[in-house]
Amino acid sequence: MLTAHLLEDILDQVRPLIGTGHVASYIPALAKVPATKLGIAVLTNQGDMLTAGDANEAFSIQSISKALSLTLALGLYAPQEIWQRVGKEPSGQAFNSLIQLEMEQGIPRNPFINAGAIVVADLLHSRLSAPRQRLLEFVRQLAGDSHITYDKVVAASEMMHSDRNAAIAYLMRSFGNFNNEVLPVLNNYFHACALKMSCVDLARTFSYLANQGVSIETGHAVISPTQTKQLNALLATCGLYDGAGEFAYRVGMPGKSGVGGGIIAVVPGEMTVAVWSPELDSSGNSLAGTAALELLSNQLGRSIF
Amino acid sequence: MLTAHLLEDILDQVRPLIGTGHVASYIPALAKVPATKLGIAVLTNQGDMLTAGDANEAFSIQSISKALSLTLALGLYAPQEIWQRVGKEPSGQAFNSLIQLEMEQGIPRNPFINAGAIVVADLLHSRLSAPRQRLLEFVRQLAGDSHITYDKVVAASEMMHSDRNAAIAYLMRSFGNFNNEVLPVLNNYFHACALKMSCVDLARTFSYLANQGVSIETGHAVISPTQTKQLNALLATCGLYDGAGEFAYRVGMPGKSGVGGGIIAVVPGEMTVAVWSPELDSSGNSLAGTAALELLSNQLGRSIF
Amino acid sequence: MLTAHLLEDILDQVRPLIGTGHVASYIPALAKVPATKLGIAVLTNQGDMLTAGDANEAFSIQSISKALSLTLALGLYAPQEIWQRVGKEPSGQAFNSLIQLEMEQGIPRNPFINAGAIVVADLLHSRLSAPRQRLLEFVRQLAGDSHITYDKVVAASEMMHSDRNAAIAYLMRSFGNFNNEVLPVLNNYFHACALKMSCVDLARTFSYLANQGVSIETGHAVISPTQTKQLNALLATCGLYDGAGEFAYRVGMPGKSGVGGGIIAVVPGEMTVAVWSPELDSSGNSLAGTAALELLSNQLGRSIF
Amino acid sequence: MLTAHLLEDILDQVRPLIGTGHVASYIPALAKVPATKLGIAVLTNQGDMLTAGDANEAFSIQSISKALSLTLALGLYAPQEIWQRVGKEPSGQAFNSLIQLEMEQGIPRNPFINAGAIVVADLLHSRLSAPRQRLLEFVRQLAGDSHITYDKVVAASEMMHSDRNAAIAYLMRSFGNFNNEVLPVLNNYFHACALKMSCVDLARTFSYLANQGVSIETGHAVISPTQTKQLNALLATCGLYDGAGEFAYRVGMPGKSGVGGGIIAVVPGEMTVAVWSPELDSSGNSLAGTAALELLSNQLGRSIF
Repeated sequence: MLTAHLLEDILDQVRPLIGTGHVASYIPALAKVPATKLGIAVLTNQGDMLTAGDANEAFSIQSISKALSLTLALGLYAPQEIWQRVGKEPSGQAFNSLIQLEMEQGIPRNPFINAGAIVVADLLHSRLSAPRQRLLEFVRQLAGDSHITYDKVVAASEMMHSDRNAAIAYLMRSFGNFNNEVLPVLNNYFHACALKMSCVDLARTFSYLANQGVSIETGHAVISPTQTKQLNALLATCGLYDGAGEFAYRVGMPGKSGVGGGIIAVVPGEMTVAVWSPELDSSGNSLAGTAALELLSNQLGRSIF
Repeated sequence: MLTAHLLEDILDQVRPLIGTGHVASYIPALAKVPATKLGIAVLTNQGDMLTAGDANEAFSIQSISKALSLTLALGLYAPQEIWQRVGKEPSGQAFNSLIQLEMEQGIPRNPFINAGAIVVADLLHSRLSAPRQRLLEFVRQLAGDSHITYDKVVAASEMMHSDRNAAIAYLMRSFGNFNNEVLPVLNNYFHACALKMSCVDLARTFSYLANQGVSIETGHAVISPTQTKQLNALLATCGLYDGAGEFAYRVGMPGKSGVGGGIIAVVPGEMTVAVWSPELDSSGNSLAGTAALELLSNQLGRSIF
Repeated sequence: MLTAHLLEDILDQVRPLIGTGHVASYIPALAKVPATKLGIAVLTNQGDMLTAGDANEAFSIQSISKALSLTLALGLYAPQEIWQRVGKEPSGQAFNSLIQLEMEQGIPRNPFINAGAIVVADLLHSRLSAPRQRLLEFVRQLAGDSHITYDKVVAASEMMHSDRNAAIAYLMRSFGNFNNEVLPVLNNYFHACALKMSCVDLARTFSYLANQGVSIETGHAVISPTQTKQLNALLATCGLYDGAGEFAYRVGMPGKSGVGGGIIAVVPGEMTVAVWSPELDSSGNSLAGTAALELLSNQLGRSIF
Repeated sequence: MLTAHLLEDILDQVRPLIGTGHVASYIPALAKVPATKLGIAVLTNQGDMLTAGDANEAFSIQSISKALSLTLALGLYAPQEIWQRVGKEPSGQAFNSLIQLEMEQGIPRNPFINAGAIVVADLLHSRLSAPRQRLLEFVRQLAGDSHITYDKVVAASEMMHSDRNAAIAYLMRSFGNFNNEVLPVLNNYFHACALKMSCVDLARTFSYLANQGVSIETGHAVISPTQTKQLNALLATCGLYDGAGEFAYRVGMPGKSGVGGGIIAVVPGEMTVAVWSPELDSSGNSLAGTAALELLSNQLGRSIF
């Protein structure tokens, strides 16, 4: 049965894994996060929030933001306007590779690899007058927390290591699949990655995925039931970098990970989960975080399969 | 509500799609199947079988057999014996490509692309004295139909067009990931692809996927509940060639397709579905069959997402 | 025997090929060059200049400039400073592909594909205070023609279509193999490509390649005899995009082509040749130009093989 | 000046390199060859044979045989019959890769990578009743040595490690670019690789490359002057695996290497050289052998550039 005690117990079981992964180190702000951080939050569709460990401590959500940006874009564009510019298939390659992108004429495989998320950022840039501010308001509302901010140090640091993402954007522009200036769009993209949120924030924010598009926190419809089902499908097949198959096999929930060590996952109709443990596995997904979700899935007997 | 009438109605809606795809033509036996064939069968976990169209006509199940071979292997080997030789990730490439296979040292991405299924065939060959006969018995029992057979003409024809699959097998053998003689294993592999089964047969056969591993037809446990969940996860991320993301997005069920135009899919805990329409889309999945599953999912409001 | 009459005769023989290729069209300034232009100039090591056709008309030398930039860099850097940042091997891929560049950690295959030439431009940018002016002076001196200029329209037009080259530069910078700001370096790179020179200019300019590094025009040593031999070797294996093998097979001279339809080639110890015909073959090399060089090689019995 | 003393001197200079490479070890028969073997033979077009070191000791010529098989095929087929099935361009990839082969529809890049040589073996198989015997007679005649044989142990050992080459052949057959049974053709291919010849044998055998197609040893025309020029061009751009550019840069002669540590190279119009030193560099070319050729080229001031 789902209790705070169960969550504590799960964290105790996965804590020994800490030390067997590696904290993301490509920017200093991520490298210095203590590897021992470990938190979990579960929001049931009945509105109960259960937590354990460092569930209230904010961290850099990184690629988890890709799901938020896509959600925002789904409200601004007709489906075909989005899906003609980015695919819906797993990539089978590293999250930041240019190889497949060149072979497939600048159309990214899905919105959760870097190239795809950069296309989404380009879409937001074309339609919103202040995309960065709009995303922040969107997240604050969903999380019911007006104190959520961008970590400016992380965003600036990402921008200083942006060469590969700039290469991705320019390559897509050479194929006609990028419409704005590269640097401002990348700047927004990196700000989204630099959102600081806690497990509790994330569980509230993504509760619409578990509830047919209606936020448990606000009671408002964020996207339609059909869009929710579709978004969950994309998360299940593409949300965990090149480890989506393994995640589905072990955890069996649609989810999205970030190199900050966070993962959000949902059991549609039942609950939204957010975990955080900074050390990553070889695919870039939180090592202890994945293990915690696997235990949760097994002990509750809850998954989509 | 799920009725035979609903199924008839769905077939009527998708029938206009016939003519917009292409029937598999790499072997004559497949090329000559009438494109107008269209059938669907749904077996509920309560044991009710509903059908429409050509649901009782047998066709070449082709790659749907990859799920059966893997199920058989799951009963013969410890998990790590299988998963050290074949991965669990979507490939992001054509089903019969050698490129990724060479770059990843002869370890196929998953058991549902050709290379992966050939590894599974190699595993069965190593452990069973008569793998071809054993698979047939296994299928006959699951389907409750002792008349199911291999289509010898199809199997022989596949064998005559086996060069690319032979290349795949030899490449894996060069990496130490194939242990038997190539031709006999390919012969078994092609026989599995040449199984002739109807939608009704398939719905009965795969009912264990919807029922925690226990066959609705026989009442016997085929695999464990955990294995069932894992197999469904693999099907959801890798079961539809390079169209798994699109299938999840539109249909939202774990499934497996074949170039004969068949697809099986399940809603765990609820039902097993088999459809057949020979014309394929650009990913090699049944065009009208996918559309029928999408309609069924939408009209029943049933999917895993 | 090498006479102006022979050159006229050769042009007559290849003129019927005009109409079977395609003029480069990615920028308007190139697309509007008349396809019927055809010229050849041969400068013997004895100092005799023989010409035919449009040998005195200036055109956009495009990638032929890559050999000039490398020659300039050879005088500014120790060999290992250059060759640790760019390789000496044929690429086996399109001239502007990013695939190999990513797989080989940002080290371009050779200095004559775009990525390699952009590294050379980066090298020049790091060491020269006014690289664009310096290259122009260098070329004017070698050609003995102070009127040679950059085509500003072409350079500006290239800059407006620079996305793919920007992607290449950023990708190399992400691997630590690009040290300056991208846009200024690309601007210089595009100016070099936009040099306007005639066949006569080119034959004079590159005469050092046929004469152990000493310009026939100026009598000065441009590079050492060993460097000359090495540069000719690079041109022979990498100078004709992905058509170097075919060019060696048919023509048998070290050479460098440009998408403006120019080709320079040398028989070391004997002569320097420049041809111009705007229509290109599928590899991007002048179609009639290659044929003219082949005829010249065969009729004189002169090649390096 | 070219003397036996100069050759001795060159061997002394390169001998210290022994120990810095690695002897081919994929089959035992190659792995056990002493790494200290070192030999060189130069045959001038005047008919003078100069030697040093182990120049008379036979070794496994391996891929050097690819140049002999192609020479034989040039006499049996019209050019277009050969060149429609195999290209003339450097591959830019490892000698035994399947990646490029799949991307280029089963047409190998050139006749000196494995795939290309297997196509040539397929061509010989189609036209000759006893291709293996014919090649042996051809070599014996060219070398003026009726004792040259196939090393049966090496050939059998290669056959036992033939999986990757079988994959290559089957992949080409799937594209319609291989016409015979795979195993007999591979058997012939491996026998050609298993020819045992000394540096002296090799210098005599390949003297036609330096002499417009006429063997210095026999005085007979082996191929035409034009074919000779073309073959030398192919060797210059494709003869040294993925190290052709570096070899041209350092040595400046058309050449062909084998993983047995042998290399043959020519200065057209002047001389034929054969070297042997079993340790290889990272491209699979003889490390000390390449260095010896580089010294010879520099000290004589002879190269094609």
